[in-house]
Amino acid sequence: MITKLVVIGVGLIGGSFALALKRAGAVGRVVGVGRSRANLDEALALGVIDEASQDAAGAVRDADLVLLAMPVGQMGTVMATIAPHLPAHCLVTDAGSTKSDVAALARRHLASHLTHVVPGHPIAGAEQSGARAARAELFNGRCTVLTPLSENSVEAIQQATDLWRTCGAEVLSMDAADHDRVFAAVSHLPHLLAFALVDEVASRSNAAELFSFAASGFRDFTRIAGSSPEMWRDICLANRPALLDELDAYRARLDALRTALDAADAGALHHAFERASHARNGWTASLNRHAEDSPE
Amino acid sequence: MITKLVVIGVGLIGGSFALALKRAGAVGRVVGVGRSRANLDEALALGVIDEASQDAAGAVRDADLVLLAMPVGQMGTVMATIAPHLPAHCLVTDAGSTKSDVAALARRHLASHLTHVVPGHPIAGAEQSGARAARAELFNGRCTVLTPLSENSVEAIQQATDLWRTCGAEVLSMDAADHDRVFAAVSHLPHLLAFALVDEVASRSNAAELFSFAASGFRDFTRIAGSSPEMWRDICLANRPALLDELDAYRARLDALRTALDAADAGALHHAFERASHARNGWTASLNRHAEDSPE
Repeated sequence: MITKLVVIGVGLIGGSFALALKRAGAVGRVVGVGRSRANLDEALALGVIDEASQDAAGAVRDADLVLLAMPVGQMGTVMATIAPHLPAHCLVTDAGSTKSDVAALARRHLASHLTHVVPGHPIAGAEQSGARAARAELFNGRCTVLTPLSENSVEAIQQATDLWRTCGAEVLSMDAADHDRVFAAVSHLPHLLAFALVDEVASRSNAAELFSFAASGFRDFTRIAGSSPEMWRDICLANRPALLDELDAYRARLDALRTALDAADAGALHHAFERASHARNGWTASLNRHAEDSPE
Repeated sequence: MITKLVVIGVGLIGGSFALALKRAGAVGRVVGVGRSRANLDEALALGVIDEASQDAAGAVRDADLVLLAMPVGQMGTVMATIAPHLPAHCLVTDAGSTKSDVAALARRHLASHLTHVVPGHPIAGAEQSGARAARAELFNGRCTVLTPLSENSVEAIQQATDLWRTCGAEVLSMDAADHDRVFAAVSHLPHLLAFALVDEVASRSNAAELFSFAASGFRDFTRIAGSSPEMWRDICLANRPALLDELDAYRARLDALRTALDAADAGALHHAFERASHARNGWTASLNRHAEDSPE
């Protein structure tokens, strides 16, 4: 039982974490910390948090658990602020989409607390944000990846695992660098590509006409381009080396398609599209089989 | 009233066109022509067509209306096959995703029938295919773009417009080259980009791991990569010049983002993401407003 949970950054993820632990009766009091007073007031009104604070240092002083759920770009500053005030037994975890940088920041700013800092990444993004978007079921059947530090105590890792399971998530453990490479490929790069496409279309003098003819394919392809610019700027910067590698691999693949298209090479285009279509439909089929197997 | 409609290519679009006109009581007999006997049998069993044929030339001999709804790559061959057998009054329209090529093919293969060949593009794609996917409501509230030929009679254009309206579609008229540039940007390029991403991910030695961590963002971004490889190969080849232009503009945009990322230029990344997010969310909001205004 967590007597006091402090959530720093009461958005979709932080708010849903609080609601999920409350629903399970696993937490006593929840204090929300954030930059936006309006968002904290909304979180209070919605019962996502029990108390609002704009003083992270004061809030963590008697906390049992701290979730860092603000944009990755604020992670270092917040860690430095809370470091001198963390009780020795307090578990610190985070919800950042990149993990090597969080590990590095923790080693820099929370050096004396590393046994109890277990980085994590709940795979439950959505383009909505703010406390209003939070819901207790968000993590049900989703995966949370933990990337434990070598300095972590076994007990802290177990406690973090149990907490995310209590939220409804399946918990996996990975090396931070592996995590960052995987998510550069399947999450960060697609976001960059979608932002680039919408930015390009919106820059045209006939943008209104173009958007008026955009249909469901464009809508789904660009859904992630509606995501928070600040959050994704921070993620891209935090995962820069892996994302640059992915971007270069993708550009090479695109260049090969361009060469095939320019040469009107029907076979090469067909093979590439067929490989992709086969892989995409196989993946979807496996997702559906998994959905049939699981309660949700 | 159309006494005999011949649909060549009884897939999602061709089948739905037949069902929509049947629902409206605007058509007598529907003959479906296609390469796959199994698909034609299914179309018959589902009542999408009244008669199946694998002889396009014979089928059009007493037709009042012919819809060409097979992959764009077969357009020329089919036009050449039916040309000597079309009754003078028979309206020919098509459902191809590219229009300059259809106009050129019509001028080549249907030269003596050009008053009655009105190219069209119903904006109602979906990744499903085959007669089984057809439904009478597919075009409700969707847009069909007609790209009339200068040779068309006013009556033929009016008849094509009326027919697509009867199917439930809003009908717009555009120049074929403009059409192809618009759809290269908002449809063909996104398909190419999605195919490239899935092909790249699937080519990795750890593809299974990558797919296992792919979440809803990846799912929506890549939905269109599950589309028919044959259809999209044909579309890309048919719209090659416009698609190459769009691809080059996109690569330049992506190169600029790579430069910003490589330089850790937070401001440039943020501005690009913000422009895209603003445009994307503005577009979605306008779609929602439009949805509230319209019956569907």
